Amino acid sequence: MLSVLLELQRLKRLDRTGWVLRGLPPGAESVASHSYGVALAAMLLADECASRGVRVNVERMLRLALLHDLAETRTGDMPRTVADYYTRDARKRAEREAFDDVMRGTYGAARYAALHEDYEERASLEARLVKAADVIDLLAQALAFERAGARGLGEFWEGVEERDFGLEGASRDVVRETIGALVRARNEVSSER
Amino acid sequence: MLSVLLELQRLKRLDRTGWVLRGLPPGAESVASHSYGVALAAMLLADECASRGVRVNVERMLRLALLHDLAETRTGDMPRTVADYYTRDARKRAEREAFDDVMRGTYGAARYAALHEDYEERASLEARLVKAADVIDLLAQALAFERAGARGLGEFWEGVEERDFGLEGASRDVVRETIGALVRARNEVSSER
Amino acid sequence: MLSVLLELQRLKRLDRTGWVLRGLPPGAESVASHSYGVALAAMLLADECASRGVRVNVERMLRLALLHDLAETRTGDMPRTVADYYTRDARKRAEREAFDDVMRGTYGAARYAALHEDYEERASLEARLVKAADVIDLLAQALAFERAGARGLGEFWEGVEERDFGLEGASRDVVRETIGALVRARNEVSSER
Amino acid sequence: MLSVLLELQRLKRLDRTGWVLRGLPPGAESVASHSYGVALAAMLLADECASRGVRVNVERMLRLALLHDLAETRTGDMPRTVADYYTRDARKRAEREAFDDVMRGTYGAARYAALHEDYEERASLEARLVKAADVIDLLAQALAFERAGARGLGEFWEGVEERDFGLEGASRDVVRETIGALVRARNEVSSER
Amino acid sequence: MLSVLLELQRLKRLDRTGWVLRGLPPGAESVASHSYGVALAAMLLADECASRGVRVNVERMLRLALLHDLAETRTGDMPRTVADYYTRDARKRAEREAFDDVMRGTYGAARYAALHEDYEERASLEARLVKAADVIDLLAQALAFERAGARGLGEFWEGVEERDFGLEGASRDVVRETIGALVRARNEVSSER
Amino acid sequence: MLSVLLELQRLKRLDRTGWVLRGLPPGAESVASHSYGVALAAMLLADECASRGVRVNVERMLRLALLHDLAETRTGDMPRTVADYYTRDARKRAEREAFDDVMRGTYGAARYAALHEDYEERASLEARLVKAADVIDLLAQALAFERAGARGLGEFWEGVEERDFGLEGASRDVVRETIGALVRARNEVSSER
Repeated sequence: MLSVLLELQRLKRLDRTGWVLRGLPPGAESVASHSYGVALAAMLLADECASRGVRVNVERMLRLALLHDLAETRTGDMPRTVADYYTRDARKRAEREAFDDVMRGTYGAARYAALHEDYEERASLEARLVKAADVIDLLAQALAFERAGARGLGEFWEGVEERDFGLEGASRDVVRETIGALVRARNEVSSER
Repeated sequence: MLSVLLELQRLKRLDRTGWVLRGLPPGAESVASHSYGVALAAMLLADECASRGVRVNVERMLRLALLHDLAETRTGDMPRTVADYYTRDARKRAEREAFDDVMRGTYGAARYAALHEDYEERASLEARLVKAADVIDLLAQALAFERAGARGLGEFWEGVEERDFGLEGASRDVVRETIGALVRARNEVSSER
Repeated sequence: MLSVLLELQRLKRLDRTGWVLRGLPPGAESVASHSYGVALAAMLLADECASRGVRVNVERMLRLALLHDLAETRTGDMPRTVADYYTRDARKRAEREAFDDVMRGTYGAARYAALHEDYEERASLEARLVKAADVIDLLAQALAFERAGARGLGEFWEGVEERDFGLEGASRDVVRETIGALVRARNEVSSER
Repeated sequence: MLSVLLELQRLKRLDRTGWVLRGLPPGAESVASHSYGVALAAMLLADECASRGVRVNVERMLRLALLHDLAETRTGDMPRTVADYYTRDARKRAEREAFDDVMRGTYGAARYAALHEDYEERASLEARLVKAADVIDLLAQALAFERAGARGLGEFWEGVEERDFGLEGASRDVVRETIGALVRARNEVSSER
Repeated sequence: MLSVLLELQRLKRLDRTGWVLRGLPPGAESVASHSYGVALAAMLLADECASRGVRVNVERMLRLALLHDLAETRTGDMPRTVADYYTRDARKRAEREAFDDVMRGTYGAARYAALHEDYEERASLEARLVKAADVIDLLAQALAFERAGARGLGEFWEGVEERDFGLEGASRDVVRETIGALVRARNEVSSER
Repeated sequence: MLSVLLELQRLKRLDRTGWVLRGLPPGAESVASHSYGVALAAMLLADECASRGVRVNVERMLRLALLHDLAETRTGDMPRTVADYYTRDARKRAEREAFDDVMRGTYGAARYAALHEDYEERASLEARLVKAADVIDLLAQALAFERAGARGLGEFWEGVEERDFGLEGASRDVVRETIGALVRARNEVSSER
């Protein structure tokens, strides 16, 4: 367990590259901070879904959220543009191997690997909801930056209202409502300028 | 949900005061980063406990970890020394009220309040294990700083091997082994100087 | 004296929490930097007041300015919202005790305690003018951030032109003119957007 | 007054160049933070001197401390090595002109200029004590950095115990005792490594 | 060679003072980062000039770009306003002596000194083109900051389209076209606000 | 040219991931700062080689140094450990394509591509010397951090004295002497602790 506890400390310092490349100052958001935001958003989404009758495994969602970026201790936080230069297959294989190396030796390594695989494949409802939480925390962070004066982050908002994350029914409604509320709050910032 | 999503963004920037007061540079560790570390440590502890036959509610532990510092969006991250100037009762009441204000209006606010209360009172086994995870992530961060050259953090290590967090049996063993491993790793750093 | 000299170093690193919570980057303004601004503003106010016939003890004002946030080495810089969760009495008592602990053992500790008490109670004209200087430096900093592109700081400007800080006559005029000039400069920034 | 209030904000962000050039991270100490430290150290020195029967004008000392680095809003904080490339006369003239430009238009500009001149010439006892406070805050900051793990700051400590700052009698004793205490505290850090 | 390699490391941390004084956060741009931008801009300018038949010594240009701010390891990065307080002659002599001290003992110190002198005097076509590259990188950085939300940088853009840097013919055309393109891109940012 | 000038600004903010993962604070060294160090080291190496009779194209070396990390505006600065998860072929192809995309549309894009290819393949003497300069600047930076108190950077020094970078004769001697001097300077730091 010790090696994981120490390795995760790296994520507390690793900046989210996307913000840095768009001119936000160093230290704007760490990968660990983002993962915290995703996990908390996932919990809120899960509870809202449950209130509308969707059966969702909250424990699984929280595990997925906490693990989904852990491999970045080995691979770094790559900017979006890497998708133009590495195939999706190559990136997934790299992430999986890095993840397994981080977790090697822990009790439950096999189970963690299965969770990671689920997230990468968006196989379960829980994985799809966590992917939505990942985007929701990104948008909430972008909005917080924009409210504080940042500009040039428009691309993060493009098309977000159309994304359904492979969800349907009430879970899709919850995600859409949440993203819709973020978009409206953002439009208010823009119109105030 | 929107208000919580936006308010939690503040924790990504709020520095852990303890490090700043001891000379670590700004941005060394945010409250959100620490909460991520606590949640991941809690998951690892829970799984290790389960492997030794301890019945533990992992979902509850992860919820407790994600919520335990959320009130700091309203109260800030107070240094240890505030304990000399505010009574424990006053601080608990303040934390509770701030927490409730953050969560007001979410589906499940009452349930979140009960979780927060459990953590503050260390009422459940899960709350006590999360408190242990809180200290374990603190020590792992201190060790990471010390490995990178920081000094003057000795007080964080004093007496940690004696703490039992109100635990007993296998759960206490797991925590003690983890803290013991951190202390040994730290002693290696000190002896190398 | 040594212990105070060393303890004050902490204020050079401690961020003013209010800016951090509103999205300014870490290191935007330290408590020590702010205290410097307050002391210099206090000197300018005092000299302007004197030029209009107000009898004011400048030495006392500068001492008050230098000491007014010193207790934050023990309590941290709490955000405005703590006023919702701790009573004014509790905060004042905590500040006073922390201040006395910082100064314990210096020659003149009793006198420093009396100055601190004066500031907390706004008992003297000098204390009221230093409180005005505290707000004036806050506004000048907010304006500097806004000129550099920051947004979302509007609440700091609300009602400032109406505050009289318990002052009257020429001293009130000086403070009002200064705040008025800041507000006008700020309005120019807003209209340029 | 407005222009000075706004211009001093720059000192809150301007790093002390000496630390940066020796590898301390950006934001380690601002010029404004240092000026705060000097002013508070000056107050403590003044009171200690007075307790030993030295007649010292405390108001004058605090004014000198607050003004002594203000010209750096125009000239920047030059590293020590500039002394090899600009004559002392050229630097003093530049500082004086920059200072006068900053203060131009304030009530009392002439008086501030005289204070600045006094400091540059170390003409009064008060100016010499403030110069001592300037060095004392530098050493206290260096010690704080070293306690937190910084190295390579030895040159700041060389010969400090021999400096008398043109002081004599009790005022010299107070300064020597203070610097002596800092040196002893520093030797403890070194011996612990 | 060792001493130069170590001394240049300082430029990686030294902030460009101009941005700091205008409210950009610490670490916004280091002198070393700027020098990199100037060198790469110089290469692009040189190749574009060559494509239009201008005979230009690219090696000389790159050497000039890499060396032009190296003396700042000794003198710091002075803000523009120092020009009001130090004569051009005094600054040039200081820069030259500092540069020579940095390079003393390297093979080729005399040649480096001649390059530095050429740049200071804008004697060669190459030196004038590198000065243009210096301004071009400054504008590109200002534009990047403005796109990310910074404001208050207007003075850097004043009159830039009229500057000819002592160039004529095709080399002047290349510089003007480049600066013109930057100005147009900047106008788009302004109009979007 | 405009698009390259703007895109390179990103490298001024992009942290070198290797330091961040080892606990150095954000903003410790940007990719642009490092590229500056490599280019200046390359110039010094080239001149020293020339003085010993090695025929080396300095212009080519400086171009290689300025271009060698430019593709990181698209791919980010990946940590060393990515070598465990992506094949060397995949990384080279990605770097090449990203580089070509950055440079697309500039006069001389084909020539820049050939230079980049040369560097990746270490085909020319110049490319091999620039690779040596890359390592030399890395070591000089590590040494600067260690002199300032950083620890845990030992792995960067392992085996460096044995590397020959495919060089032979006088050029190999120059590189070995330079690295040897860095290693000796570093051993002095270690022995002082």
